[in-house]
Amino acid sequence: MTNTDSFLSNAGRLMQESAIRKMGAVLASGRDIISFAPGYPAPDTFPWDDFAGIAAALLASRDGSVLQYGPTRGYRPLLDAITGIMQRRGVAAKMEDLLVTTGSQQGLDLVARVLIDPGDVILVELPTYVGAITAFRNVQATMVGVPQDADGIDLVALDATYDRLRREGRRVKFLYVVPNFQNPTGLLIGLHKRQRLLEWAERRDVLIVEDDPYRDLYFEDSATEADVRPVKADDTRGRVVYLSSFSKTLAPGYRVAWIAAPASLASRFEMAKQAEDLLTGSLDQRMIYEACRRGVLERQLPLLRRHYAHKRDVMEEALQREVGPDVTWPKPKGGFFLWITLPPGIDATQMIGRAIEHGVVYVTGDAFYVNGSGQNTLRLSFSAPTPERIQAGVARLAATLRDERAARATTAGAGAPGAS
Amino acid sequence: MTNTDSFLSNAGRLMQESAIRKMGAVLASGRDIISFAPGYPAPDTFPWDDFAGIAAALLASRDGSVLQYGPTRGYRPLLDAITGIMQRRGVAAKMEDLLVTTGSQQGLDLVARVLIDPGDVILVELPTYVGAITAFRNVQATMVGVPQDADGIDLVALDATYDRLRREGRRVKFLYVVPNFQNPTGLLIGLHKRQRLLEWAERRDVLIVEDDPYRDLYFEDSATEADVRPVKADDTRGRVVYLSSFSKTLAPGYRVAWIAAPASLASRFEMAKQAEDLLTGSLDQRMIYEACRRGVLERQLPLLRRHYAHKRDVMEEALQREVGPDVTWPKPKGGFFLWITLPPGIDATQMIGRAIEHGVVYVTGDAFYVNGSGQNTLRLSFSAPTPERIQAGVARLAATLRDERAARATTAGAGAPGAS
Repeated sequence: MTNTDSFLSNAGRLMQESAIRKMGAVLASGRDIISFAPGYPAPDTFPWDDFAGIAAALLASRDGSVLQYGPTRGYRPLLDAITGIMQRRGVAAKMEDLLVTTGSQQGLDLVARVLIDPGDVILVELPTYVGAITAFRNVQATMVGVPQDADGIDLVALDATYDRLRREGRRVKFLYVVPNFQNPTGLLIGLHKRQRLLEWAERRDVLIVEDDPYRDLYFEDSATEADVRPVKADDTRGRVVYLSSFSKTLAPGYRVAWIAAPASLASRFEMAKQAEDLLTGSLDQRMIYEACRRGVLERQLPLLRRHYAHKRDVMEEALQREVGPDVTWPKPKGGFFLWITLPPGIDATQMIGRAIEHGVVYVTGDAFYVNGSGQNTLRLSFSAPTPERIQAGVARLAATLRDERAARATTAGAGAPGAS
Repeated sequence: MTNTDSFLSNAGRLMQESAIRKMGAVLASGRDIISFAPGYPAPDTFPWDDFAGIAAALLASRDGSVLQYGPTRGYRPLLDAITGIMQRRGVAAKMEDLLVTTGSQQGLDLVARVLIDPGDVILVELPTYVGAITAFRNVQATMVGVPQDADGIDLVALDATYDRLRREGRRVKFLYVVPNFQNPTGLLIGLHKRQRLLEWAERRDVLIVEDDPYRDLYFEDSATEADVRPVKADDTRGRVVYLSSFSKTLAPGYRVAWIAAPASLASRFEMAKQAEDLLTGSLDQRMIYEACRRGVLERQLPLLRRHYAHKRDVMEEALQREVGPDVTWPKPKGGFFLWITLPPGIDATQMIGRAIEHGVVYVTGDAFYVNGSGQNTLRLSFSAPTPERIQAGVARLAATLRDERAARATTAGAGAPGAS
């Protein structure tokens, strides 16, 4: 047989499977496993009847453009609707600043290809979204992490990191941030800090890539619309590339998201998209547009806020009850995730086999770190499982932790005399 | 404002807008223009009622997976259905050889990223599909063209080109071919030649990337199922990466296509796809799967063959009647395209402004050539317009040509005395 490895490009050889997507194989095994791994929205919240009505109308119309090729930029009325959405977020985006993407993952990939040369430095939060890590790694970026405080990225560490890199002669292309209910930590960058981030980018001549899929899912007991104001809203100088999506608020199966960027960059992203997939699915764009036009999206948002806030409460209560003070997490004010720090000495990757035996899975924290750390952290998604499954899953996780600690105690005890 | 150009990657700086997609702006201008430019399928052939029934059933099911994230490889039952399709094409593909892609354009892009390093040589037909040129150019491939005979790629020229490149110390990664009713020429590679292509690839240790979107659209007056047997069908050694699509047979707005490749490459394409868009649209995949399962696809094929054969006839007759022997083309035995050679001295790019004035557009032939030639060629798509519009459009094209020749005669006459 042909040795296909000898034909791989440098990029092709370096590609890896994502930690989250690997978990898919475990879940497909058919065993009763409660999954806190992928950040899936809850399918019982999808507006099924609205979608059925929209699909029926679109397909009954026999309007060819519903199923035909279309412009790479996106379906024009959808772009108009996105202009309105951006305006309500405080961003005055013009048509030429916008591009519909096939999910925000494509947005990240387009950003990577258009901006990053091998060896360019990209600054990211520690930890950060694993899908961004994959997209940036595939174009051979050097990712350098910046730690976070309770209110998001540490600005002093950010500037010190930048300084060090410049002294080493490295080019920093952009800072990638998820300011609202970050994946994986759930953290929110404070408003004052957002302003200072922008000033920093201007002073240091760096772009900001702002990834904002969760902003509509703030929890009303602890956050408001004002708290999730995009960095992009104050971007008077064209420094911010903003990504957002309908995946978390309408449904991810449609793969419809968008980029808002300086027009000169948006046209480059469009060229890159032409070569990547020509256009985002026509029917998908029409379904999403109709859901905007008919007010389905607006009706969904308050329901979703309550739905996910309730699941966060259920998971937090279960963790407090079942696991107690041994694990800690920052209380999320929105989004899909609890970011857990385990007791000292417990390694989330070493524990995952035991967790699967107990019938529960999570994502190991190290997958979100670009500096090889995070071994005693893990990400729990409370978004998709029902409250009952969340409680049952946390009980399984608690049992996993008990077993893991007992096993470590035994090993430690057995190993101690011989340890040097 | 920020100078965003200074942030572009090398790839980002080199990206260009495709000639076909540029034409979109002209068509969106609202004027009465008959377009022979894009290779769009005819929307009146789409099985609208079947699609409406399928969408209604899928959305009424409230089966979360219809609108949820899903595996990067593709929806498992659809992959099963594709296995059956491949079998009927003579290819024994296993599940691990297959990957669903977001249109075949994504397939080409994945191939490019996983296989091509900047400067690697890719051999292509002269002329070849412009979307492939774009995808390969975006990873900075060096494309070298090989001329075609009436029965497809010239094997003597192919080997001579390979030889020359190797002597120059260049690495040839793969040969890209569209064997069935090629875009843009409509040519069909002869069966014997396909076998010899495979032997050549084995002898020279080169991969073949076989792009096969039109194979089901053979015209029964001049071709049969036997004539469109894939090169991949005889690929016992794992040398062929095969791409095909539902875009031309069901509808392109769904963006559902596939790759069949040696398993070791398919898994790399999957990793690349993870970073590009996570998955192909879930609803789209389900719609296509149901259209396969319910026999809609099988029912469509004979209708489509007749539909497009008729339109080819209408366009050929109109050209013979309106333009006469001044333009020539190889008679297509399938597919969407007529490939026109203009009278000597007429340049399709120089003529395009006049064509638009006359209310007709085509794609200039040079867009399909990687060696800067093709100035007196152009591509006409007969697939989308109605027979009446085809006739009217050809009349406009004939008028364009008459005016262009008259203008050239005048210029030539005026210019002749001064010419040295």
